[in-house]
Amino acid sequence: MALIVQKYGGTSIGTVERIQQVATKIIKHQQTGDDLVIVVSAMSGETNRLIGLANELNDHPRGRELDVLLSTGEQVTIALLCMAIQQQGAKANSYTGSQVRILTDNTHNKARIMEIDDNKIHSALADGHIVVVAGFQGCDEHGNITTLGRGGSDTTAVALAAALKADECQIYTDVDGVYTTDPRVVPEARRLDQITYEEMLEMASLGAKVLQIRSVEFARNYNVPLRVLSSFKKGGGTLITAEDPKMEKAVISGIAFNRDEAKLTVLGVPDHPGIATKILGPIAKENIEVDMIIQNTGHQGTTDFTFTVHRNDYQAALKILQSTADTLNAREVTGDDKITKVSVIGVGMRSHAGIANTMFETLANENINISMISTSEIKISVVVDEKYLELAVRSLHGAFNLEHE
Amino acid sequence: MALIVQKYGGTSIGTVERIQQVATKIIKHQQTGDDLVIVVSAMSGETNRLIGLANELNDHPRGRELDVLLSTGEQVTIALLCMAIQQQGAKANSYTGSQVRILTDNTHNKARIMEIDDNKIHSALADGHIVVVAGFQGCDEHGNITTLGRGGSDTTAVALAAALKADECQIYTDVDGVYTTDPRVVPEARRLDQITYEEMLEMASLGAKVLQIRSVEFARNYNVPLRVLSSFKKGGGTLITAEDPKMEKAVISGIAFNRDEAKLTVLGVPDHPGIATKILGPIAKENIEVDMIIQNTGHQGTTDFTFTVHRNDYQAALKILQSTADTLNAREVTGDDKITKVSVIGVGMRSHAGIANTMFETLANENINISMISTSEIKISVVVDEKYLELAVRSLHGAFNLEHE
Repeated sequence: MALIVQKYGGTSIGTVERIQQVATKIIKHQQTGDDLVIVVSAMSGETNRLIGLANELNDHPRGRELDVLLSTGEQVTIALLCMAIQQQGAKANSYTGSQVRILTDNTHNKARIMEIDDNKIHSALADGHIVVVAGFQGCDEHGNITTLGRGGSDTTAVALAAALKADECQIYTDVDGVYTTDPRVVPEARRLDQITYEEMLEMASLGAKVLQIRSVEFARNYNVPLRVLSSFKKGGGTLITAEDPKMEKAVISGIAFNRDEAKLTVLGVPDHPGIATKILGPIAKENIEVDMIIQNTGHQGTTDFTFTVHRNDYQAALKILQSTADTLNAREVTGDDKITKVSVIGVGMRSHAGIANTMFETLANENINISMISTSEIKISVVVDEKYLELAVRSLHGAFNLEHE
Repeated sequence: MALIVQKYGGTSIGTVERIQQVATKIIKHQQTGDDLVIVVSAMSGETNRLIGLANELNDHPRGRELDVLLSTGEQVTIALLCMAIQQQGAKANSYTGSQVRILTDNTHNKARIMEIDDNKIHSALADGHIVVVAGFQGCDEHGNITTLGRGGSDTTAVALAAALKADECQIYTDVDGVYTTDPRVVPEARRLDQITYEEMLEMASLGAKVLQIRSVEFARNYNVPLRVLSSFKKGGGTLITAEDPKMEKAVISGIAFNRDEAKLTVLGVPDHPGIATKILGPIAKENIEVDMIIQNTGHQGTTDFTFTVHRNDYQAALKILQSTADTLNAREVTGDDKITKVSVIGVGMRSHAGIANTMFETLANENINISMISTSEIKISVVVDEKYLELAVRSLHGAFNLEHE
């Protein structure tokens, strides 16, 4: 008998029929003897409906009252799912974040979970109930309702699994697992049975939008086995766990990419200590997030400095950089918002030489020019012209033989 | 500086525009120096939308989960109203029933308020906030969400006014006060400036659907001055208070009527002690509410026994009564579901003789036959054929000179 936490997103419970299907599936699972804690999001469309109302009444809906408003979305779903389960003859009890209680800090709209009281859940499970918990929400120490921000329901599920010492946290979504790359780009892309937290973090942050980074980090920190599955298709999904030293790892697990990048370069900056912070400081002050940063070795007392930002921030960043360049007496500022980043990821990389070489050789064979390179222990990222994205991903997928296990 | 509790019903805050108007009105009022606690219902239509979803998922949505579901309706409104107030530059804080905390018993779907914690509200008021509280809801001692049933938001407002020792509880609705009778029946009907709790209770229970009986009872028990006003029209509305002995009272305050009655009679019942309970026991067991009950003095060892029920319960009551009549060896069962009850109401009646006589004479002059009569200290009710309803109400309204103050 295991204790399983399952999370169903907005599309999985987006209609009355789907809620009924989820109820049926949960009850069947419970009958195998497992204890089940179910975390749900708002029905798809509901959060947008509520935000629409808020926008009509306030120029900048935010803070405490926005959380009071948005948290109703999940509260509706927990009640409806419990009613569906009860209708099918099983016992179910719902809990809002405040009721559980999922204690957070008081940063409204993007609160962080501090502590979870597992008392009510454990006693409801002991009474044979399926426990249904509202995702995305908690309360601060004064009982004010808080919400966790983007991907909050995944985080709720993982945090509950950690607090309850669950055997597994299963995230039901509209894809049936994590793939070696996006199947829309490479039809031969293969679903991975297993992947490490670290690889998943790189995959997520590089644009494979299966799981929110935050929930994967949480799972890693508390060593919660995390499984991504489809609500609509059968199959074991992808299990995300700590690295298992006994297991032979594939060298490369997958290829991620990100279409939303833009790069900016300052040419001929005087090569002094502290130059990076002088360039990036004004960018950070405007809350523009910087992704890759590259500084080449200087020559003749000057250097070139390049970084990438989200494409939406390109114009703003360019303006800031031009004014910085003037102050620094730099030679020139250039930029390009038609670039993409492609990354090969794999923990096996650490013990295998030549991965970088295979990657560069593959791209060269296709005549794809690499304009930036950045590496970490388990990934190599390159920036290429966006027109080569599909070709780059496909050729790398083939070169690393990812279509075969 | 007064402390005022105001309650706005579903139509008063049924659209974004109306929420904005209510916000403007509240802020203006606050600027006169009063402290304001606002109780709101769900936006009109929202509760029905939620019940619709519940009905699709469960044959008999009820109990704990129905309360979790329905309480979101008011939670949405408190957040939206606070956002609208903040947008217009004033400070506002919202509270759900659980947050206040409005402690109730654990009778889901029709809980009773046990205790209200006034701490958070008092300190928010002291900070210059307009306090917005979700009506209709509370929580039990274990933190389970409860709802108060029909008219629950009025009850929340009155209970809060009592707990906070407010100077007045104002119920904003779509009528501008309590009238001497229904203006749709008697165009000369006049708005009453003031009325006693007792009169209002008789008016409410007799079919003037301005306020829920329960909230008037609550106001009377805690001596909360209660005012009914229109959200849409200016005017002082009707103030409902305890009887003021210094004040000269009108003999009759108003004329109420109820179209939904049906009467049943058992003829020739053996006139033994305990006969009433033998007849009404089986009716009560089926949860059918009985309104008027009349037993005439018997003759020759038998008596006739008549009572009225809601028209919807007529057929069920008739069936039960027929089987009871057989058991009791009664002569015959008759019934009529085409009747109405008309009542004249007024605390002044206690000190004035001849009211009953004026009433009966007025009806006789119009050739209206009275089939039942029942009296209390402050009202006289008669049952007449439904076709005479409008004529009866109009002639009585004139006879008691209610169109003039």
